[in-house]
Order: sequence, then C-alpha cells, then structure tokens
Amino acid sequence: MKKPEVALVMGSISDLDTMQDAIGILKDFNIPFVAKVLSAHRTPKDLEAFVTAMEQVGVKAFIAGAGGAAALPGVIASFTTVPVCGVPIETKSLKGLDSLLSIVQMPAGIPVATFAIGKAGAKNAALFVLSLLALVSPGLLKKVRRFRKKQARAIKKIKVKA
Amino acid sequence: MKKPEVALVMGSISDLDTMQDAIGILKDFNIPFVAKVLSAHRTPKDLEAFVTAMEQVGVKAFIAGAGGAAALPGVIASFTTVPVCGVPIETKSLKGLDSLLSIVQMPAGIPVATFAIGKAGAKNAALFVLSLLALVSPGLLKKVRRFRKKQARAIKKIKVKA
Amino acid sequence: MKKPEVALVMGSISDLDTMQDAIGILKDFNIPFVAKVLSAHRTPKDLEAFVTAMEQVGVKAFIAGAGGAAALPGVIASFTTVPVCGVPIETKSLKGLDSLLSIVQMPAGIPVATFAIGKAGAKNAALFVLSLLALVSPGLLKKVRRFRKKQARAIKKIKVKA
Amino acid sequence: MKKPEVALVMGSISDLDTMQDAIGILKDFNIPFVAKVLSAHRTPKDLEAFVTAMEQVGVKAFIAGAGGAAALPGVIASFTTVPVCGVPIETKSLKGLDSLLSIVQMPAGIPVATFAIGKAGAKNAALFVLSLLALVSPGLLKKVRRFRKKQARAIKKIKVKA
Amino acid sequence: MKKPEVALVMGSISDLDTMQDAIGILKDFNIPFVAKVLSAHRTPKDLEAFVTAMEQVGVKAFIAGAGGAAALPGVIASFTTVPVCGVPIETKSLKGLDSLLSIVQMPAGIPVATFAIGKAGAKNAALFVLSLLALVSPGLLKKVRRFRKKQARAIKKIKVKA
Amino acid sequence: MKKPEVALVMGSISDLDTMQDAIGILKDFNIPFVAKVLSAHRTPKDLEAFVTAMEQVGVKAFIAGAGGAAALPGVIASFTTVPVCGVPIETKSLKGLDSLLSIVQMPAGIPVATFAIGKAGAKNAALFVLSLLALVSPGLLKKVRRFRKKQARAIKKIKVKA
Amino acid sequence: MKKPEVALVMGSISDLDTMQDAIGILKDFNIPFVAKVLSAHRTPKDLEAFVTAMEQVGVKAFIAGAGGAAALPGVIASFTTVPVCGVPIETKSLKGLDSLLSIVQMPAGIPVATFAIGKAGAKNAALFVLSLLALVSPGLLKKVRRFRKKQARAIKKIKVKA
Amino acid sequence: MKKPEVALVMGSISDLDTMQDAIGILKDFNIPFVAKVLSAHRTPKDLEAFVTAMEQVGVKAFIAGAGGAAALPGVIASFTTVPVCGVPIETKSLKGLDSLLSIVQMPAGIPVATFAIGKAGAKNAALFVLSLLALVSPGLLKKVRRFRKKQARAIKKIKVKA
Repeated sequence: MKKPEVALVMGSISDLDTMQDAIGILKDFNIPFVAKVLSAHRTPKDLEAFVTAMEQVGVKAFIAGAGGAAALPGVIASFTTVPVCGVPIETKSLKGLDSLLSIVQMPAGIPVATFAIGKAGAKNAALFVLSLLALVSPGLLKKVRRFRKKQARAIKKIKVKA
Repeated sequence: MKKPEVALVMGSISDLDTMQDAIGILKDFNIPFVAKVLSAHRTPKDLEAFVTAMEQVGVKAFIAGAGGAAALPGVIASFTTVPVCGVPIETKSLKGLDSLLSIVQMPAGIPVATFAIGKAGAKNAALFVLSLLALVSPGLLKKVRRFRKKQARAIKKIKVKA
Repeated sequence: MKKPEVALVMGSISDLDTMQDAIGILKDFNIPFVAKVLSAHRTPKDLEAFVTAMEQVGVKAFIAGAGGAAALPGVIASFTTVPVCGVPIETKSLKGLDSLLSIVQMPAGIPVATFAIGKAGAKNAALFVLSLLALVSPGLLKKVRRFRKKQARAIKKIKVKA
Repeated sequence: MKKPEVALVMGSISDLDTMQDAIGILKDFNIPFVAKVLSAHRTPKDLEAFVTAMEQVGVKAFIAGAGGAAALPGVIASFTTVPVCGVPIETKSLKGLDSLLSIVQMPAGIPVATFAIGKAGAKNAALFVLSLLALVSPGLLKKVRRFRKKQARAIKKIKVKA
Repeated sequence: MKKPEVALVMGSISDLDTMQDAIGILKDFNIPFVAKVLSAHRTPKDLEAFVTAMEQVGVKAFIAGAGGAAALPGVIASFTTVPVCGVPIETKSLKGLDSLLSIVQMPAGIPVATFAIGKAGAKNAALFVLSLLALVSPGLLKKVRRFRKKQARAIKKIKVKA
Repeated sequence: MKKPEVALVMGSISDLDTMQDAIGILKDFNIPFVAKVLSAHRTPKDLEAFVTAMEQVGVKAFIAGAGGAAALPGVIASFTTVPVCGVPIETKSLKGLDSLLSIVQMPAGIPVATFAIGKAGAKNAALFVLSLLALVSPGLLKKVRRFRKKQARAIKKIKVKA
Repeated sequence: MKKPEVALVMGSISDLDTMQDAIGILKDFNIPFVAKVLSAHRTPKDLEAFVTAMEQVGVKAFIAGAGGAAALPGVIASFTTVPVCGVPIETKSLKGLDSLLSIVQMPAGIPVATFAIGKAGAKNAALFVLSLLALVSPGLLKKVRRFRKKQARAIKKIKVKA
Repeated sequence: MKKPEVALVMGSISDLDTMQDAIGILKDFNIPFVAKVLSAHRTPKDLEAFVTAMEQVGVKAFIAGAGGAAALPGVIASFTTVPVCGVPIETKSLKGLDSLLSIVQMPAGIPVATFAIGKAGAKNAALFVLSLLALVSPGLLKKVRRFRKKQARAIKKIKVKA
C-alpha cells in the first residue's frame, strides 16, 4: 500500500454517502488516501491521535465532513498546520445551514477551507486538494486540466430539446 | 480560596463583557468558581488539561461562552461527563446565529445545554447552574426561590406611564 | 412503582416519536420517570398543577418537548426552580427553527437548557439529565462513563469501505 | 376613570418605547385602556390573575408586546377567549425574528393575531383593535374611516424633489 | 341562504387544502360565510369589487390565505376597515417564510392580523374570528368556551405509552 | 416638460434616500421621468389611477421601491403590462429580507423584475431600464456602453496600497 | 429558422425542468429563441462567446437560470448591455435561497432583473420579456393583454366547494 | 521585486479594509504578493487577463474577497486550476450571508475554498495559503508552527478579572 497523501475523516458513518463524492475523485486520480469515521465530540482523543499520526506520515491535506454542530474540521485544524478542507453535511432539520456555519465561521487564527453543503462540496473539496497537490506535480496538473476540459466538453455538447 | 464549584471558560477575552452576566450571578450567590480564557481551536491541549483538572477538583458544572464556529462547549463536553452549559456569543456579521447553531445542534451522544445569545444567555446559564446545585443544597434552593420572588416583585411594581 | 426522578412533558402526542429518544435513554439507565402530554396553550392550568405536583414529589429535572411557538419549556420553568431541559420539535414548514428560537431565546431570569432540534436533542436532553443526576450518584456516574466509552468504541470500530 | 376596553401588556419596561405606538393610537381615539408590565416567565401567576380580572371587567381585546422567546401573547390567549393581538419586539441579536416566530407560530387551537416587528406592529395592533371595536360602534367606525382618509391625503400631497 | 358574516378569500385554488381548516371551524360553529378564489395580482379589480360588496353586506371579518409574495391580505385591508386575518400558505421553496413576511410586515397604518404558516394558521384565523364575533354574541361565546374545554379534555386524557 | 418615459414610485417618502440612486441615473442619462409617493396599502385607488394614467401617456417602465410587506411593485404590475422593476428597501428589523421576498416571490402570471436590497438595487433598476430603452434607441445604447467602459476604467486604475 | 429574439441559458441540464416554464411561454407567443446549457464556472469562454454572438444577432433579452452560487446571470450581464433576466433554481439543501441571493444581490453597475425561485420565476421571466418586446410591438401587446384577461377569467370562474 | 507567490483580488476598493487582514499576514511572513481591485461583473475581461497572467508567473494561490452576489472567487476559479480562496465581505443589508452563499455554494466541478465572513475570513484565507505553501517549504512550516504557538501562549496568559 502506498503512503497516503490525503486523510479523509467523517463524523458519522451516515456521512459516507456524501463523502463518496470526494472519495470518487481521489480514486479517479489515483491519490492514495486513508478514510476514517472519527468524531470530534465522541472520540476526541482518537481523533487527536489520528491527526498527529497522519501529519507524521506526511499527508498533504485533510478532508473532513460533518453535520450539525460540525466541530470536526476545526478540531482537526487545531491539531495540525496541514491544510484542512471542511464539507458541511446536509442535516435533517436545518438542511446543512447549521453544518455550514459551524465549519466556515472559524475564528481568526485557525483556518478551515470550507466547501458547499453536501455532495457538491465533497467533490469540490477533493478537486481542491488535487489543485493543491498539482502545485508540485506537473503530471497531476496535466490531469486536472484534462478533467476541466472534459467537464467543459460534456456541457457544451448537451442539446436542449426545448 | 474555596474549592471551585463551577468552571467558566470563554473562547476569547472579548467574550468577557457578555460572560460578566454569568459571573455576576455566581458572585451574588457566593458560588466559588474559576474563570479562564481558553480556545477549542487555538489552545486545544490546554483546554483538555483544564477540563480534566476541573473534573478532578470536582466542579459541578462548566459554563462556556463562544462565538462564530463555537466549538468550545461541545469540545469541553467531549472530555467530561460534568454538565456543560453553552452560551452563544453575539457575532459581528451573523449576530450570534452562527454561535447558536454551532452550540445547540450537537450530535446525539454528547449533550450541551444551550442558552440564549448574549448576556441573557450568560445570566441564565449561571441561574441554571444554581438550580442544579440547589438540588442538593436546601440553603441555595431557598436563595434561588427568594431571587425569583424578588425578580417578580420588581416587575410587578413597575408603573407604566402611558 | 418508584418515585419519579424526571418529568417528561410534550405539547402534543405527535411529539412522542421524537421524545422516545429521551424516554429510551431514561429506560436504559433505569431512571424512574413520568411522561405526560400537556400544552402550555391548551391546558395551562393542568400544566401548572402538574409542574407543582412533580416538584413536590421531588423530581430532579423536567424534559419538555414542543414545536412551533414552543412556550412549554419556558412556562414550566416559570413555575419551578427545578432544572428544565427544552427539546425543539421539528415543524412542517420552518423545520424547527421556530421551535428552537421559541425555546432558547428565554429572557434573563428564567433559564431553560436547550438542546438540538429533533431526536438528537431529545436523546441529549436525557443524557444531560443523567450527568446532572450523576453528580450525586457515583453508581450512575460510572454507568454514564461506560456509555460514553461504548459509544466511542462503536465509532472506532467502523471500517469505511471506500 | 372609565371602564377599560383594552388591556395592554408588555413583558418588560424596555418594551414601552415600542408599545407607545399602540398607546398613542388608543389615546388619539379615546379608547379607555389599562397598561401593565407583566411577564409570562417571571410573573406567571400575576399574569393569569390580570388576564382573568380584565376578562371580568369586560375588555374587548388584549395587546401584548414581547421579545425573544415571546410567550406572553400565547399565554394570555391560553387564559381567555377575548381576542389577543401580539406585537413582536425587536431584539438585540436576532432583530425580532425570534419574537415574531415565538408569537405567530401558535399551535392550532389557541389563536393570537400577530402584527409586524416593532413600532409598525404596535401601531397596527391598536388600529386593528379599533376596527374590531368599530364593528359595534358606528361612531368609532366613522373616526377610523376618517383616519384612513387623512392618512391617504398626507401621502398624496407629498412632492418628491427629485 | 343566510347573510354571510365572514368572507374567506384565497389567492389560488391550490390554497384550498390549507384553508379547509378555517372553513371547517366556520362550519362547525354555523357561521355563514362566503369563500372565493381571487388574486391581488391576477384579478385586482374583481378583488376590490368583492371586498366592497362584502363590506356592504356587512361581513364582520375577512380571512385571506396567500403564498409567496402574498399581497392578498394587505390589499384587502387597503379597501376596508373590516378586520382582516391573513394566513401564510406554505410554499414549495421557502416553506412559507416568504408568505409570512409578506403578510405580517405591513407598514404602519393598515393592519392585518397574521396567523401561523399553513393549516394551524388557517384554523386559528377562524377561531380568532369566532372570538371577535363572540364579543357581541353570548351564545357564541359559550360555544367557544366549550370548544376550549373540550380541546383541553382531549389532551388531558391522552396516555403516553412510554 | 417632456413626456415621461419612466414612472418612479415609492411607498413612503423615507424611501427617497434609497431611490435617489435610481433618480440620479435617470437624470444623468436625460431620461424624462415622473416620481411619486404612493402606497399600495394606504392609497390603493390613487395608485391604480396613477398607473393607468402613466400607461396612457406611454411610459416604458415603472420603477417601484418599497419596504417590509412590499406589495407596491406587484400591485403596479397587476394594473399594467408595462415592465415593472421592484427595489426592496432596507428595513429596520429584518434589513430588507422581508422587502426582497415580498417583491421577488411573485406568483406565476404577473412578473416583477427585482433588484438588490437598497441603493445598489435602485441604481441597477434604473440601469436596467436604460438597457431596455436602448433596445430601440441606438443613441442611448452608445451612452450605456460608454457608461460601462467608464465604470470599468475607474476600477482598473485603482492602486491598492497594501 | 427565424432570427432569435431571446437567448435562454441554463447552468446545468438539470435546470431544464424549471426552465421549461419559460420555454413554454416563449413558444405559446411564437417568440423565436435559442436555448443552451452553458456554465459560468465550467465553460466560461464558451459562455462569453455565446453572449457576444447572441448580442450580434440582435437578441432583445437573455433569460438565465442557475442554482447555488448562481453566477450565470451576472456573468452574462457583464458581457452585454442587452437586458438579462435571472431565474434562481431551487437547490437541494438551501431550497434556492442561495441561488436567489447569488443572483439578486448584484453590485451597483451591472443590472440583472431577478424573478422568483423555481418555475414561477421561469414563467415570469418569459412574461417579463414579452412585456419588454411588446413595448415596440402592438401586436404582441394585444396578445399579452389577452393572456392577462384569460388568466383573470380562469381564476374568477373557480367555484370553491367549501 | 520578487516574483509573486499569491495574487489577492478584491471586487471593490471598499473591500480593502477587510482584506488588510489577509495582506497583514502575507507581509508578516514575507510572502511576495500582488493586490488588485478587479470585478467579475464590471471588468470581466481584465479579470480574465489578470488571472491568466498570474497563473503564468506561477502564483501558488489566489485570495479573492467580494460582497453581495460575490461571483469573483468562482469566476477566478473558472479560469485557473491554481487554488482559489474566497473571502465573503460583510454587506450592509444581509451582513455577508449573501456573500457567503454566493461563494461557498459552488457547483461540483470548480472548487473555491471559502472562509469566514469579514476580517477573520481574510486572515484565515492568508493563513491557509501559508499552510499550503509550507507543504514544500520547511522554513515556512517552522514559522507557521511558531505563529500557532505564539498565538496559543497569548491566550493562555490572559487573566480574567472576574
């Protein structure tokens, strides 16, 4: 198994359906990663241990998905200077507005890069990590640009049957 | 100095103005307490150490005030089974709606008792802690009831100059 | 039948589905309790009589679930100094944001401890009451800590099939 | 002193500034009224006594202003079938959205007529009460219609200096 | 057919499902009423004609349900001094928050009594009209009080199967 | 005086400060216009008469600014097929969110073109009307394009003193 | 094929279901139009090329539907002075509130006419374009007025089965 | 002058006060950067040219601050695969909620890393860029870690004068 470049954490196994959109991108681009369920509130010490371990093996980014009072991405960022990307999970009552504000409104000093609520956010968090890794990998940069072009072509060839 | 019964934590010294309304109640009722500035995001390990220490000296409740992505009360609750009361601090842009949702929308399993945004919430968190301490202190219960009566009398004697 | 330690009230029988998550916790921990449907608006005098009676039999906490203009927890708190825990019930149109604000934004002077909208809030209100009861019951404290550990273990052993 | 036709209640003396806009209308139209500060949460029994007394002296409407978890209008309505008009007071953090939802989202069975947040709501609650009283008072009806016409004329004669 | 006492208007036939809860109350209490679909935006002149005609036949109240940019209740109130009760209809995207704000936030000068979003609001608007009619009808007052008692009894006899 | 091409209406003279940003644009481009204070709620018949008169003199667009339950633009649109542009005025409590939803959420069938809350919206409503008039006026089109270029140049020459 | 008078753009093919309500109106009134899927974010250069081409063929209006961070209408408006009408598409989590604010809150200088979230907005955007085209087409004006009358008649003949 | 590593863009010079908190961090850490005012809506072509130029000189990240319908960060991201960090600027009416949703709710395919509304977000965007640059610069990593420790120490030494 290759050394992981990305650590993906989710606060609950029910978040996996959303986070699959991040996992799919990492797999498509052959980025080695670790994926874990760990909770800022229910497994605080295990989370700290995991973050420290991942920093030591040299991951380049964390992707953390959480819902409600979504402390997970911020707590990870409190333990590391490795870039942390937060994905607000849609919630039953408040539809992820709670998750979004809990992640994005970080106090000055500990940054968390936040993405859209739900699957679009999960996918974009992974794409953002690719951009970041591509800064030092011309091979990956090429692939990311190819992905963008393919994405554009797919849109352009749609015919609207009005 | 007496052994503290309550530990009061705030995420930033700028929260003190709000938290004074909790401190005022604790002082009026002669409840020994400790007050600290500690941040879930900027001083995670010190926060954990403080929570553990306070649990060991036997505090009966935590009161935690925080604003924005207000992880503080939930992170305290992740380290202890002592009751944690959260006070959402009013924020500049979103007026504390962010703080409120970040504190109240805790996932099932780790409870945080949440109070109103701002000074009313700070005062009520302290009054709630008194109610809780009064469960095993008939003397305090009497004082709390007297406070309630005095509060009612103060309202009743207001004359509206219409 | 044992003397109740907790009084659980809901504003409508339709709230029972949510409040079962509180009831489940109280049962799992063998906490004797009373559960009633009473409305702050439709049965105000019966509610007052019930609160007074429960205070006299010595309950240690109220758990009150209500939706919409959710006056129930605050009105209970207006009649007693026993700790009151409020659970905002999810509503059809505003998804419980109305319930949440009606419960959490109590004026200074009468505290209500508020928990998350819906089932997570119901479960956490009950867990919070356990923490409160555990302050004077080493046996219960042990059980609560065991619950926390079990909960953590359950999360840690999840394998993410990425 | 004449028998009151309207009872005006506010949850706190700080609400008086807003409620003056209701009082002004009642005075302008010579409607006898009583104005009191009483709190659903801090003086529940006095509130109940007041509502019952006012119903007995035959008031035709209640106007109740309250802020935050604004239970006041709903609790008044729980004790009487006399029409209750609620005025949401603007609050410091949430600007009266909390007050509005706490008043307007009453459960089916106990109606509260709700008006706009702040002074416009206070004025309109009083104007609404006039309309209601005018149903059985041709003299008042005439005055209300004259008020409407005067109001329209005042707008129509404005010249915009563009 | 008896002379109508209440005019019920809705902005679209799709609002009927909600407004049935108002109609049901009016029928249960034998209040003669007229029910129409008329739109402030699509049939402005017919609406004005209807309001004027209803005022002339002597209706005592309007109940108006509308959704989205719900101008209907305010426009009715602009044509009459008869009390107008507004019911915000739940909408597809914004769940009736748009309807609520469009109805309740009336400018000072033209009052509209607003009720909860959806069926609870429709039922309460009708119950409020009963209260208003009961001011001059001892027979109706008795019925309204009986309704309240029956409603309370129905709640009190619920047994919670915990 | 030249025949007006645009009719600008505001619901209250207090809206003039905002609407000046529309008036300024109309003046800068020498578009003849009429500006009036008229209220959908307080002067409904005068409003209807004004809209009809303006349609007859051949105005090409209405610009209507209103706040709160802002029925004005929609009511204007109910009386004419001339394009109506709505400007939500910022309100004291809800900051114009009420105005925005009351204007933009029009039911299908009667269109109102909505712009941003406050002065930006007023300015853009006027600029939009210019675009519309420019469709049949090559001279005006040239001026609008020149305005755009000047606007771009003004931005491009800003030096950031970092 | 006739020269298009309107260019309709949507950010994703999933928006077509909503935009059909605009297309339906354009077809019913025999307005020649072009409909395309183009994304401000994924196909920026193609979008610019399309807008420029459409301006050159002389379209009189753009109708653009987009969801989430809905930059599409504003970006189109940045490339042309032809009137742009924006339709906020309902989104999964935030129900189109995100789309609405992203479209309507344009900065002063570049106007976008915004319509309601979803199908009502799509239909009204097309109706608004008709009003605009009718300014220079007496034939179309007649048809638009006939549409309005037919719409009113359809409402007026509804019988409410209460 | 050194080759820039970061390009900082703001939509209006009025955003500079907020963006100074990003600039301050870049200066403190001696990161060469370019700062420009460019608008997605008012200077679209200049913005595209600037983004392309910056990508060619090899900047490692963009930081873009914008308010209202804040298309700027997303439009930058549409032209480059270099990581883009978005800062929602607080707005007058909606306090930056509009800016936040316009930036964070990007559709899947084009990522923008979003930070908190206002100065905290500006500072954290810059700190996040440092983390990203530190991935390939051990010297910078050391400095970032020192910054974190200093920040923690500053908090820990605060004494609360209760």
